[in-house]
Amino acid sequence: MQTKVFLKESEIPKKWYNIAADLPSPLQPPLGPDGKPVSPDMLAPVFPMNLIEQEVSQERWIDIPEGVLEILYRWRPSPLHRAHHLEKALGTPARIYYKNESVSPAGSHKPNTAVAQAWYNKQFGIKKLATETGAGQWGSALAFACSLIGLECKVFMVRISFEQKPMRKVMMQTWGATCIPSPSPETKAGRDVLEKHPDTPGSLGIAISEAVEAAVTDPTGQTRYSLGSVLNHVLLHQTIIGLEAKKQLKKIGEKKVDIVIGCAGGGSNFAGLSFPFANDKIHGAAIDIIPVEPASCPTLTKGPFIYDHGDIAKMTPLLPMHSLGHSFVPDSIHAGGLRYHGMAPLVSQGVVEGLFRPMAIQQNECFRAALLFAKTEGIIIAPETSHAVAVVIRKAKEAKEEGKEKVIIFNLSGHGLMDLNGYDAFLHGRLVDHELHQDEVDAALCELKGLPLPTVNRTGKW
Amino acid sequence: MQTKVFLKESEIPKKWYNIAADLPSPLQPPLGPDGKPVSPDMLAPVFPMNLIEQEVSQERWIDIPEGVLEILYRWRPSPLHRAHHLEKALGTPARIYYKNESVSPAGSHKPNTAVAQAWYNKQFGIKKLATETGAGQWGSALAFACSLIGLECKVFMVRISFEQKPMRKVMMQTWGATCIPSPSPETKAGRDVLEKHPDTPGSLGIAISEAVEAAVTDPTGQTRYSLGSVLNHVLLHQTIIGLEAKKQLKKIGEKKVDIVIGCAGGGSNFAGLSFPFANDKIHGAAIDIIPVEPASCPTLTKGPFIYDHGDIAKMTPLLPMHSLGHSFVPDSIHAGGLRYHGMAPLVSQGVVEGLFRPMAIQQNECFRAALLFAKTEGIIIAPETSHAVAVVIRKAKEAKEEGKEKVIIFNLSGHGLMDLNGYDAFLHGRLVDHELHQDEVDAALCELKGLPLPTVNRTGKW
Repeated sequence: MQTKVFLKESEIPKKWYNIAADLPSPLQPPLGPDGKPVSPDMLAPVFPMNLIEQEVSQERWIDIPEGVLEILYRWRPSPLHRAHHLEKALGTPARIYYKNESVSPAGSHKPNTAVAQAWYNKQFGIKKLATETGAGQWGSALAFACSLIGLECKVFMVRISFEQKPMRKVMMQTWGATCIPSPSPETKAGRDVLEKHPDTPGSLGIAISEAVEAAVTDPTGQTRYSLGSVLNHVLLHQTIIGLEAKKQLKKIGEKKVDIVIGCAGGGSNFAGLSFPFANDKIHGAAIDIIPVEPASCPTLTKGPFIYDHGDIAKMTPLLPMHSLGHSFVPDSIHAGGLRYHGMAPLVSQGVVEGLFRPMAIQQNECFRAALLFAKTEGIIIAPETSHAVAVVIRKAKEAKEEGKEKVIIFNLSGHGLMDLNGYDAFLHGRLVDHELHQDEVDAALCELKGLPLPTVNRTGKW
Repeated sequence: MQTKVFLKESEIPKKWYNIAADLPSPLQPPLGPDGKPVSPDMLAPVFPMNLIEQEVSQERWIDIPEGVLEILYRWRPSPLHRAHHLEKALGTPARIYYKNESVSPAGSHKPNTAVAQAWYNKQFGIKKLATETGAGQWGSALAFACSLIGLECKVFMVRISFEQKPMRKVMMQTWGATCIPSPSPETKAGRDVLEKHPDTPGSLGIAISEAVEAAVTDPTGQTRYSLGSVLNHVLLHQTIIGLEAKKQLKKIGEKKVDIVIGCAGGGSNFAGLSFPFANDKIHGAAIDIIPVEPASCPTLTKGPFIYDHGDIAKMTPLLPMHSLGHSFVPDSIHAGGLRYHGMAPLVSQGVVEGLFRPMAIQQNECFRAALLFAKTEGIIIAPETSHAVAVVIRKAKEAKEEGKEKVIIFNLSGHGLMDLNGYDAFLHGRLVDHELHQDEVDAALCELKGLPLPTVNRTGKW
């Protein structure tokens, strides 16, 4: 009874898959404040040109540089596991597989793109990266990557998280990064907020503004900004997950996958596993592909597909995406990585076109799923990942009712060893469910009136 | 440039290696309070008979049950890594390898024996295990194993750790275990201490006494005690580490190992990697095998080889081991897993016989090594593991000076994500070194006068 499948280093995928080449409608460009498309040159102060080229590329397959692979080899190819014991506990005829991204040194899938981004910046002659982090997973991953590649790294961490999760800061410092609470007096954006609200807990929106400002105002011109999700090139770098998984399923003798599941905050881990399977779906395979979001931040299930800003301070261009409005502040659930008002344009458009079928779940169901997973499969998963597992369990139960041998695969995006306070709250009955209702969504969206609408074929053929 | 070597599940070792069969002098038996050898029957209230049989076995190879392997497969065989980037940073001609035990769901090597012990207890009809834990690694590992195998688990956690590391408790609770601070009012041993010292921070010695009492006083007779290191059967279960490593070194083309290194607290992770290599040494191979301990708890380098108790309350039999005296309280270094007054009898005797050559290291050198490791190899290691890495770095530098292509392997016994406060202290210059001097050792040993001495050939031939 085989439990997991490894690939040799020589079997690692050598190219990333760019789904932009295969979507039925062309991807809509980001827009500037004037409503006109943002050109690559306009992004040059923020990102290095080699990553901007990836961001707008229409090439279906993009080579993974050898220098990136050499770092990914430290933990990749990651194992694919068969969840025998979860299946047994559920009494399901479904065969459940998971891709274990928790084995990376930073504990999640985030280093897949952190390493690539740091490498491209280094190639371009950049000396330092600035970024923001909420709960800390992304900041840790970028600190890790910069350490190995030889770049300075500065992380603006949302102040409330900075204070509540001091160990995340220590992780980043151990890898040599600087981590400061946001808002900070170091940027104009930060000072403006501190002047008005000296006691603010901070927000991802403010931290993004500070990190972008830190990058573009460096007088040496050698600092750039780095983002951990949402953008096309970030999702591209994560497709190594799904590409490995397909090879591993083949090795273990699975010919056909029925259901692909990933949690979705900005969209990167979901995209990483699912885009290579979406390629099969585009070419005719019947696959149910499900991004799972929190009911308290139902971007894909209740937000419209519109042009919106990526941050509260409107420092970013307008992106074509599902959004709850750039000033929407989600409920304080424990899955901090899923608390984002927007969603990756590539995932958003895939939903509009019918490739993906999103679901929203309450956090108590998620932690119940996480506890069952820990007690059967043994891994304590991140609160974000628990959203995927909750839907896996629903689908496995459906397969039992239908008596069908469904093949289900999900992305175990990270472990929860740095997030045990969420488990503590659940075990002691302190977790509160919250579902965002449509009228609240409509209210949040009022501010977006007058912004342009993307033009995408909304009648998906799948 | 290959970075790591996996084995297939089918290549996992099917037998453990029992070094007791190969030591030049026979292993000395544990003694009772009367100075007479303890018979297996006398241990029956504490351990199940199938584990007692392993404890006293002289068989060289012992089958790993299929039921144990099926659980180990969740993360084993563990990867063997080549530390290319550490080598490069050191400019050494040495080739450095490490066995990565941090990939287990509990984050360390401890589940290797936790799973085996839980499985044998289950086979013997036991319903519940009681144990103690200091920093929490062992308690987490046993909670994990009991959850998967279907046993109740109760962990007495040293009170100061229970309060300082609340997330370790949450890990255990997530896996369904009960974790209470020790001393507790639940046992006579605990009540006695609380009566005299209501504000005591607790100690491993007290916690062991409580766990043993909880096991032997269960009126149903269905509870047993479980220990995470020191005993012969515990070390036996860890030898899967070294047996896998030898297969992996062969796969990568290494014919000969020069230096084997592991940190040593009770001795189990050191033994797990090194005993299979010690077998080669016994048969003539020239290998330097180094257990590394903290300078503040120099059991092997400064303690004598004597008969001593395993706990302060003298609940355990007398064991033949290197010891600093059963009431010695080591300095509060961050490597909590290395703060033990004694050492596994098998490791102790191997030192006396010249098989192993122990070293003691200060904690600032260890954390400097850990930081270099994090910045080059990317993994944040446990403070315990940093002791091994500090000696790896010394040996790699010696190889550079000598211009020799030495092959070095060490055991990466666990990650440090639950122990980041140690890194925090180091990064902020708050770590204090402390070396225990011989006169302090001699004073601590006064209490042992009159205890019997083991009879072992002290003139090793290696």
